[in-house]
Amino acid sequence: MDKVPLQPSERIDDLLTNDIQIIQSDEVFSFSMDAVLLGRFSYVPLSAKGRIVDLCTGNGVIPLLLSTRTKASIVGVEIQERLADMAKRNVQLNQLDTQIQMIHGDLKEVHKQLGQGTFDLVTVNPPYLPVPNGEQNMNEHFAAARHEVFCTLEDVVRTSSRLVRSGGKVAMVHRPHRLVDIMCTLRAYKLEPKRIRFVHPRAGEEANMVLIEALKDGKPEIRTLPPLIVYKNATDYCDELMEIYYGKRNALLSSSEG
Amino acid sequence: MDKVPLQPSERIDDLLTNDIQIIQSDEVFSFSMDAVLLGRFSYVPLSAKGRIVDLCTGNGVIPLLLSTRTKASIVGVEIQERLADMAKRNVQLNQLDTQIQMIHGDLKEVHKQLGQGTFDLVTVNPPYLPVPNGEQNMNEHFAAARHEVFCTLEDVVRTSSRLVRSGGKVAMVHRPHRLVDIMCTLRAYKLEPKRIRFVHPRAGEEANMVLIEALKDGKPEIRTLPPLIVYKNATDYCDELMEIYYGKRNALLSSSEG
Repeated sequence: MDKVPLQPSERIDDLLTNDIQIIQSDEVFSFSMDAVLLGRFSYVPLSAKGRIVDLCTGNGVIPLLLSTRTKASIVGVEIQERLADMAKRNVQLNQLDTQIQMIHGDLKEVHKQLGQGTFDLVTVNPPYLPVPNGEQNMNEHFAAARHEVFCTLEDVVRTSSRLVRSGGKVAMVHRPHRLVDIMCTLRAYKLEPKRIRFVHPRAGEEANMVLIEALKDGKPEIRTLPPLIVYKNATDYCDELMEIYYGKRNALLSSSEG
Repeated sequence: MDKVPLQPSERIDDLLTNDIQIIQSDEVFSFSMDAVLLGRFSYVPLSAKGRIVDLCTGNGVIPLLLSTRTKASIVGVEIQERLADMAKRNVQLNQLDTQIQMIHGDLKEVHKQLGQGTFDLVTVNPPYLPVPNGEQNMNEHFAAARHEVFCTLEDVVRTSSRLVRSGGKVAMVHRPHRLVDIMCTLRAYKLEPKRIRFVHPRAGEEANMVLIEALKDGKPEIRTLPPLIVYKNATDYCDELMEIYYGKRNALLSSSEG
């Protein structure tokens, strides 16, 4: 590992896959299960000629995870300078400079820099919640990661549709209460939802996370995958998550191109 | 039970709830799990002043099931004369003439007869499949029940939206591969999807049925209920279905108004 500077409050965590390590901070941004599941859910172009872009990349967790599954080039886009800086140092830390490029910028404008219709895959773990009314008693970094401060769902979908090539894929993790918004907005931007998976905390509980993959210019017809039930009892993750978090380090490599 | 005439190929089956019996025919129409699940999934108006309409009612299985849960008046609409006749005899057979009315007619025109915006609940188990290209080597009754011969998804949704009052509900069972069409069409007709439940044949398998409830003029936000996994092992239904099919006869009464 390269020696990279840490800011106050930052620490280096093991990303639990291959030898990837990640700088994060409880005061600014730490990755969560959403990112881990999206990093596995996406089909990826495998060859070095493939191109992937991750929007709302935060500290770059999804590009780091995807780098274990593909040789494709990966671009991360993050609007918050503090997080974009962390993402850049995460690339250095893992010596992935030749594969991953981090851009500090606004996704609403990034097609001017990256070009239109040139990516095989767009991944995005966007802010889930509308901007709340009244005071935001929140740390600004958390506010931007969780609330639609810098971009709305429609901004994210419009940009994804611009960046991806016809026949390319867009993979998103979101909250299921937005499902109708997500599906109708994706379709409106010619991104046809093709695969969906719901995540339920426990058997008998409503879903609290959803993974969706859409195909640019695809025909209507969607597959609803088996649900992921996070806990198999009061304290233990299900076997699938145990394998991800504690299983063999190459578990993420088991997914293949679609 | 009243004495009602049976046509050739018809038989009388037990509807497995209360003392309801049902005339059906393997050559024409037999109810399936779709109807049973929709009959339980729908919230129902409970009072005798409530009004329910069931579109694509077939032999009237859903009105019969709903009659065990509510005193509300129920109208069934069926375009196929042979099935509408069977549905009418099913009402007689169960002496439900004061609660259930069966109409032989086209759902695309039925608002002229039933009025607009006067129903608290619309239920519908529509044909699932687009009309196939080429020859239909099928019995005409099955063809109409399964394929969009007489009505498309959009026809069903448009009629449902016309019949239901603002704040009333529309409950539908369908195939999940049409999910995006269903959601976007419902929203386009001011029927906001509010509850959804996926049915998977077995753990680890994709969904093959979906139950959706929409609210006329509702605000966006949908709940994804726990999935229903039909089989708990190679041969046995899950506990929920065991209770429905073999449990106490009043099991259907356990659901309450929403």
